[in-house]
Amino acid sequence: MIVKRSVRMRSSRRSKVILHSLDAQSMTRADLQRLIDDKTKPIGSMGRLESLAVQAAAIIGDTNPKNASASLTIFAADHGIAAQGVSAFPQEVTGQMVANFLASGAAANAIAAQFGIPVTVVDCGMMHLPARRDGLVDMSLGRGTADSSSEPAMPKDVANKAIAQGRHFAVGIESKIACFGEMGIANTSAAALLAHKLSSISIAELVGRGTGLDDAGLSNKREILERAAARTGELAPTEALAEVGGFEIGTMAGAMIGAGTSDKLVVVDGFIATAAAALARAIEPDCEKAFVYAHRSAEQGHRALLDWLEAEPLFDLEMRLGEGTGALLAVPMIRAALSLFGMASFSQAGVSGATPAS
Amino acid sequence: MIVKRSVRMRSSRRSKVILHSLDAQSMTRADLQRLIDDKTKPIGSMGRLESLAVQAAAIIGDTNPKNASASLTIFAADHGIAAQGVSAFPQEVTGQMVANFLASGAAANAIAAQFGIPVTVVDCGMMHLPARRDGLVDMSLGRGTADSSSEPAMPKDVANKAIAQGRHFAVGIESKIACFGEMGIANTSAAALLAHKLSSISIAELVGRGTGLDDAGLSNKREILERAAARTGELAPTEALAEVGGFEIGTMAGAMIGAGTSDKLVVVDGFIATAAAALARAIEPDCEKAFVYAHRSAEQGHRALLDWLEAEPLFDLEMRLGEGTGALLAVPMIRAALSLFGMASFSQAGVSGATPAS
Repeated sequence: MIVKRSVRMRSSRRSKVILHSLDAQSMTRADLQRLIDDKTKPIGSMGRLESLAVQAAAIIGDTNPKNASASLTIFAADHGIAAQGVSAFPQEVTGQMVANFLASGAAANAIAAQFGIPVTVVDCGMMHLPARRDGLVDMSLGRGTADSSSEPAMPKDVANKAIAQGRHFAVGIESKIACFGEMGIANTSAAALLAHKLSSISIAELVGRGTGLDDAGLSNKREILERAAARTGELAPTEALAEVGGFEIGTMAGAMIGAGTSDKLVVVDGFIATAAAALARAIEPDCEKAFVYAHRSAEQGHRALLDWLEAEPLFDLEMRLGEGTGALLAVPMIRAALSLFGMASFSQAGVSGATPAS
Repeated sequence: MIVKRSVRMRSSRRSKVILHSLDAQSMTRADLQRLIDDKTKPIGSMGRLESLAVQAAAIIGDTNPKNASASLTIFAADHGIAAQGVSAFPQEVTGQMVANFLASGAAANAIAAQFGIPVTVVDCGMMHLPARRDGLVDMSLGRGTADSSSEPAMPKDVANKAIAQGRHFAVGIESKIACFGEMGIANTSAAALLAHKLSSISIAELVGRGTGLDDAGLSNKREILERAAARTGELAPTEALAEVGGFEIGTMAGAMIGAGTSDKLVVVDGFIATAAAALARAIEPDCEKAFVYAHRSAEQGHRALLDWLEAEPLFDLEMRLGEGTGALLAVPMIRAALSLFGMASFSQAGVSGATPAS
């Protein structure tokens, strides 16, 4: 009888383990952390990879990295404020780079292909559409925003539409890890203004060189953005989006809400994506639990904004390209984190624990 | 005629690009950087991933990430100084964890499997061999080192043998990216002593909690290591290895020399691996060009040692496990870096460059 009972206990323990790997969503984060703590390694010795494992499993409801499919969506749009010379690149580059994404020639494509991650490109409101645009998803809200240094970037109902369409789109994403990137000449300006309106961090702290301004260009950008910021006072989140733009930032913020509230892990890229994340959080605080901040970029305002969000990104490689390139680099880390659930426990491996008083 | 000449030029340009991806080794780092600079992204905007791409392509002689095969070798051994209570874990754990590696149950196995990286485990001199040890590579130099707090860890000729066998082993590694990890109860003590002898950084700065000492344990460890360090004066690199150990650190240092001088990228893991890297560099300075420092670990001495080496690791996830787990996480980053060579150039993609005076 005793033997039989012991066998029954063991088999029930084993089936519990199998259950864990299939249905992590019914487990609390504390349950998941206990699973990690029992693995053959000193407690906490995998550092931030452990909390990443627990967060990812809790959100996607699965501890198996093989089921952690990933995707990248790049939101593109143009910005009226580009006319003020706030970018080192001409506005045509937005459409040219979208053509490059569609032809798989950009950095985001190269890294995504390396990791086997599919890329979707969304037109949220470009000025110049590429001639060949097979595969481009049309969510255009106009031919670029208005110049926010002198007028609202878009009407309030368009701002609401940006959030709503992003939300709807992301709920339908089939992958478990949603990386979001952006393309839009002058969108570091829109992101700096949006971050300023949401956080009250000064424009001076938030404005950087974007993808390549020199000293004179940076000084001009600061002046323009100070003027744009002074045009309005305190604003509600969606009002701020309407005042400063852009179409792609609003759509991305909506996508972060949609993905983050539908059991997907949201990988936040650089400065512009982090401004979108701040907007998403302001509108729907519940989505933030699903956010993984991938990296700290070299764009000056990113550190200040991350600090304000109390976000600790996974790495800092001094990247400042956008496109979701930083988010992509976080995907293998997330999968590696989940792989820890497949480790042997101390009892399974017959490994001695730490001595109580060493 | 003009048309024909233009066509010929284009085709010769294309064949040059193909040549680059096949034979990067004949190119200088400046040539490789020029290739990266011409890709469709602002110059330098991929940050440290760009220098990583150039280094990796220059060392392995190939720009194609598909050819950047990786492997992990874990060197295991025991340390006589463990008898002084410098570790939170009993010495049996070295052999138990080696059994765990061979059964694919450890963190390094989980991450390596996730990334498709094969793992080799090498016995460099363990006290307790696991009963089942299929696949364990035998390079044993003894049943653990002697206790370096009272006598040399190993004779000088054994230290030389450790370096030589590691070197020979690594020259034979077939992968292009060589990750090295270690397992050995008390080896943070040996690593701290070795780093102290090589760099003159104080023991106080180099000694940390290893895989889990409490305050009393840490204070005892400091005292023991101060005594061990005071036993000898200034030492040549291989003398230092002989005095403080360990077998796995010496073999790993030899492997770093062998891999780093035979066209392989050497991925340096945490504190113990970095001590091995410091030893390798001291013996054979030419191998350092191939080193990629993966991460800054949570082990206290690692920061000081990295600073002394002027090494800037790729990330800091507060990990402190060893086994090569940090090195493994760098592999997707290295492959992502190499993937940038596959991007379209500005002319190929028809993308406008930055405006000269913005």
